[in-house]
Order: sequence, then C-alpha cells, then structure tokens
Amino acid sequence: MTRKPTLAVVGATGAVGTVMLSILSERADVWGEIRLVASKRSAGKRLVVRGEEVEVRLLEPSVFDGVDVAMFDVPDEVSAQWAPIAVSRGAVAVDNSGAFRMDPDVPLVVPEVNGAAAASRPKGIIANPNCTTLTMMDALGALHAKWQLTELVVASYQAASGAGQPGVDRLYDELGVVGGRRDLGVRAGDVRAALAEKLGDQASPFPAPLALNVVPWAGSLKDGGWSSEELKVRNESRKILGIPDLRVSATCVRVPVVTTHSLAVHATFASPVTVDEAHEALAEAPNVVVVDDPAKGEFPTPADTVGADPTFIGRIRQALDFPNTLDLFITGDNLRKGAALNTAQIAELIAAELS
Amino acid sequence: MTRKPTLAVVGATGAVGTVMLSILSERADVWGEIRLVASKRSAGKRLVVRGEEVEVRLLEPSVFDGVDVAMFDVPDEVSAQWAPIAVSRGAVAVDNSGAFRMDPDVPLVVPEVNGAAAASRPKGIIANPNCTTLTMMDALGALHAKWQLTELVVASYQAASGAGQPGVDRLYDELGVVGGRRDLGVRAGDVRAALAEKLGDQASPFPAPLALNVVPWAGSLKDGGWSSEELKVRNESRKILGIPDLRVSATCVRVPVVTTHSLAVHATFASPVTVDEAHEALAEAPNVVVVDDPAKGEFPTPADTVGADPTFIGRIRQALDFPNTLDLFITGDNLRKGAALNTAQIAELIAAELS
Repeated sequence: MTRKPTLAVVGATGAVGTVMLSILSERADVWGEIRLVASKRSAGKRLVVRGEEVEVRLLEPSVFDGVDVAMFDVPDEVSAQWAPIAVSRGAVAVDNSGAFRMDPDVPLVVPEVNGAAAASRPKGIIANPNCTTLTMMDALGALHAKWQLTELVVASYQAASGAGQPGVDRLYDELGVVGGRRDLGVRAGDVRAALAEKLGDQASPFPAPLALNVVPWAGSLKDGGWSSEELKVRNESRKILGIPDLRVSATCVRVPVVTTHSLAVHATFASPVTVDEAHEALAEAPNVVVVDDPAKGEFPTPADTVGADPTFIGRIRQALDFPNTLDLFITGDNLRKGAALNTAQIAELIAAELS
Repeated sequence: MTRKPTLAVVGATGAVGTVMLSILSERADVWGEIRLVASKRSAGKRLVVRGEEVEVRLLEPSVFDGVDVAMFDVPDEVSAQWAPIAVSRGAVAVDNSGAFRMDPDVPLVVPEVNGAAAASRPKGIIANPNCTTLTMMDALGALHAKWQLTELVVASYQAASGAGQPGVDRLYDELGVVGGRRDLGVRAGDVRAALAEKLGDQASPFPAPLALNVVPWAGSLKDGGWSSEELKVRNESRKILGIPDLRVSATCVRVPVVTTHSLAVHATFASPVTVDEAHEALAEAPNVVVVDDPAKGEFPTPADTVGADPTFIGRIRQALDFPNTLDLFITGDNLRKGAALNTAQIAELIAAELS
C-alpha cells in the first residue's frame, strides 16, 4: 500500500471513543484519513483529533467505503450488526464490544501477549478484550511465559467509567451529594436516602449507591449466580493466554473511582517462582511498570495510574501456604490499556501488515 | 454473685468506644456499674451510656478496683501495659487490640464460633479478633462446621473507620474536597494535587489519597512484603476456627467507605458443597443474614450494612473450576461485629459465668 491506511472510529463520542481520539493524537501517526463515526444523536458534531477538527459522520454502510481498519467502541448489539458490514465494505474490524470475543473464528488480542493471533481472522474481525481482563493480561502473560499459569483467583475494584460516561456522571453526581456531609455512611440506608433526596429518581447505571459504597455487581446475571463480567474474566483469560483449562474464579466489584480498574490477583503456576524472579520478569515485560516497595509507601493505586498507558504491578508476595503461588495487586486505566489503547495497538498491527 | 457485675470500658472516647456505649445502651442490661475510662486527654468528659451521663475516669491502676470485666478499645501498646494491671486488680480483661491475640495462653473468641474457648484464660485475658477477620468468621464458622474449611483466598474492601476516628475524619475531609468537582480522577496525581492544595500537609492515617481511590495497604510491613493486616487474617482465622494448617492468602485494600468492611472470599472445603446447601447452613447460623438474589439486585453492600449487628452474605457461587469451593461476598460493620459488638458479646459470656 503506498497511501497511508484509512481508519474509522465508530463510537467516537463515547467515553472510550473520547480517550481514543487523544490516544490517536499522541501516538506515532500511521493513519491517512481518520473518519469519525457515530449514531444519529452525535453525527454532525465536530471533534478534534491530531489537532484538527473532524466532523462526525453518520453510521451507515457507505461510511466504511475506502476504510482499511474500522474500530468499534459501541454496545454489543451495535457491533454485532455493524462490524460485519464494515468487513463487507473491505475493512478489518477491531471490536471493543463483547459481541465477538468468544467466537472461535475471531482472535482476541493483547498485542504484547498474543499479537500474532491478529493475523488469522477468518471473519475479518479482531476482538479487543474486556477491560477487567486486560488490566492483568500484560503482567500475567509475562509470568505465564516463564512459569506456566494454572490457577487464578481474582477480586476486582472496578471504576465507574467501566459503565461509560453515564457511570462517570453518576459517580460525580453522587459525590456532589455526599461531599461536605459528615453524617453519612454511619447508618444503613443513609447514603441511599441522601441520594434519593438530592438526585430523585435520576437513573443510575449502578444497582446501588456507589459513593461511600462498593457494589459487588457488574454486568448481567448468568447461570449459577455469576455475573457476565466475572465469566468474561475467566473465558477471555483462557483464550488470550491460550490455556483452555486455566482454573479461574473472579468476583467483580464496583468502587467509587472514576477511571482505573484494580485487581487483587492470586496466581498459581506450574513451577516455583520467587518474588525476585517475578520482579525481574515483569521489569522486562513491555508496558508493565513494577511499583513495589511498601516500606517506602510504593504500591499502585488508581489515582496514580489514571491517564497512563502501562499497567502497574505491586504488592508482589509469595503465598505463604500455597505452592508456586504469587499474590499481587494490579492497576490499569480501563479506558486506555483496558479499552482504547489496546484497540489502537491492534489497529496498528493491521496498519503495519497493510503497509 | 448476688450483685450485677461491674464493667470498665477503657478507651470509651475512641471510634470503637463510642459505638460500644451505644451497644451497651441497646443490649439486655447485664451490668451493674459501668465505669468509663480514658487517657488524661479525655478524662473528666461526660458521656451518655444507658441513658445516663457518666464522667470519664482517668486510666490508673485503682480505676480497676472492684471491676469484674474490663474491656480495652485502645492501641496495642496501651493494652499490653494495662490489661495485665486490670487482671492483677481482679478483673477479666477483654482486649480488642492486637497485643494478645496470638498468645497461646489467651483465647481469641468469636462467641458464635468458639465461645467455649473463653472459659479457659490462663492470663485472665480474652482477645477480640481483628475487624477484617471478624467480618467473615460467623459465616465461615457455620460453613466449616459442615464441610471443613481447607483454603481461603480473601481480598478486602476495608472502611476508613478501621483506622479509627482519624480515618473517618480524613475521608470526610477528602470527600469535602472532591465532592462537586467533575475534573478529578482523570489524570494521574490530580486527586493528590487537589487534596494537597485544600488540606495542605494535614496528616492522613492513609499512605495515599482515599477519596476517588483504593489503597492496597493496611497496617505495618512484615516479612515477604505482607502487611500486618493480611497476616492477622491468616493467623487469627486459623486460631479461631481451630485449623492450624488452614491455607490462607489475603490482600487487604482500603476503600472510600466510612464504616463496614467487605470481603471477596474464595473458600475451599474438604467435601463438596452446593450453593443451596450453603444457603441453608447460613440461614441457620446465628447473626448471619443471607442477601443473595442478584436477579432482584440483592447482594450485601457497606451502605446497607453499616449500623447493623449481623454480617451479611451474598453472591454465593459454586466455583466453576475449583472442586469443593464457594466464592462469596461478605459485609460487616467493622465497628460493631468487627469490634465493639463482639467485645460486648465476650464480656456478656463472662458476666453469665460470674452470675
């Protein structure tokens, strides 16, 4: 290809899309035209990418004509309908929804871990993993390469922006109500009552108050009481790491953080691994930063991670009672590595392939 | 004993002491005199217990003369010094600090689980467990009795009041700064900067911002990168449940909640257990409430738990890949069952023994 490839960003005005535009503006510019696409509600808006204003175009089949790579940052059902249309018009679709992730004919790609998988895409579609799974994949991929992962027990501390812009807006609204009060969080229901009084029946994407609270639920209900988010962590980790029998239990919990997911991970390997060896392997891993000196108060937190590209790993401990097992704490910006950044990295793999 | 026993509450003015006074005012009144005791800073204050004003007395040896049971809600070093003095003056000491919990001559008691252990107290001291451990003991004790617990992987979501009144004050101060702002939590360091600007170098009991953040640290640094809080969960669970070889890994994380600790628990047993069987066993367990119908949005959260006596259990799932294993989510008011309530229950065991 002599011209630079054309990129379409579908869902350019959402929470992930907004971060995508700044990521595309920051990274080495491999793209020719960047076409911004959204639903009727947002078409016609003008957004800035690479320092230039671009008018958002309506999502319709012809918008994909001449497009080489089409990224989708939209709900599952929109991707399910439109990614195949983009492919039929000649684009490779890189989809950040859950619509295609477990399709055996769609690779699920984390470039640092299984980038080669992107080359084989029978449907012309490549899937971007769920943000919770992505938070730990770079670190676990590096450890798995050396010691062979066999078991994962994960508890998440997930940010409001995992529920999109409505999640962010709701958390800010709730913090506006509780901030300055010193009488809340001391009696059952007092936070609910304060929110109801000030915010009325304004819809929340969360099934309980998030300010001054944690909510052990994300996604939809599946068999056995599992949430869809918890099953994604299991099934997507297995597919990305190529360990079909990886044993996984996850409990997914929303916390009052705007952006950046955190995970407490209990990871068991086939062979013995020490903390020093893990530090060494992670120091060499791409896009992973080890922050692990609690004596100096150094460990990853969401407030220190948000806006950064790498994932941060700390609190690495050898389990006292479980052989070949490490306990660790991982943070990652759920809108960047957890979504837009990983999608951009996949798209760049395709751009390199086309050039 | 013909008279009702005399109780001393040492540390009556602290975060736990304050809750203790309301618990003593609510429960069946087994006490004669209730003597409130504190350090020089608080001695002379007048506090209300059982509807009556009582003057706080200075902590000195003679304050224990005539006392039958002395509760200690004070830092480790204060308990280490003063509990033996109370015993030497004739009292049974019930200590809520960490000073004596792992002493083999001091029973570590959760009345619903191992209440009988309180009767054998060679030093005259009974220890009250750490709040994080206590949050899950009633539920796990009931499950252990039926299926024999062998492994625990725990991730905590711990409230600010676990760090006492300074923790509560700090969280409110921080929420006062971030509440109403809609520009924070989006760039690394922005929350730190906003707090520094508004709160200056006002001391925090937390090693990082807690508002709009989670902090994977509680307690002091121990060997292998473990925090003291994480080791307490391991060692105290083993002692209370009477399983010296119980395999435990815990990761303790502070969250911006005022009061009520939450735990994601991955519990493995010696024999198979279904979700229905677990529901049944927990429904019969004292002071445990099952809240587990996610289809109706029912699961425990801190905001719905604070101020209540029981611990709440939900999200009970049979692990998909681990035999004989349940994943669950537990909440408990860390100042009530996690501290003052359990101490009051132990003291009542002694009162019954004396009567």
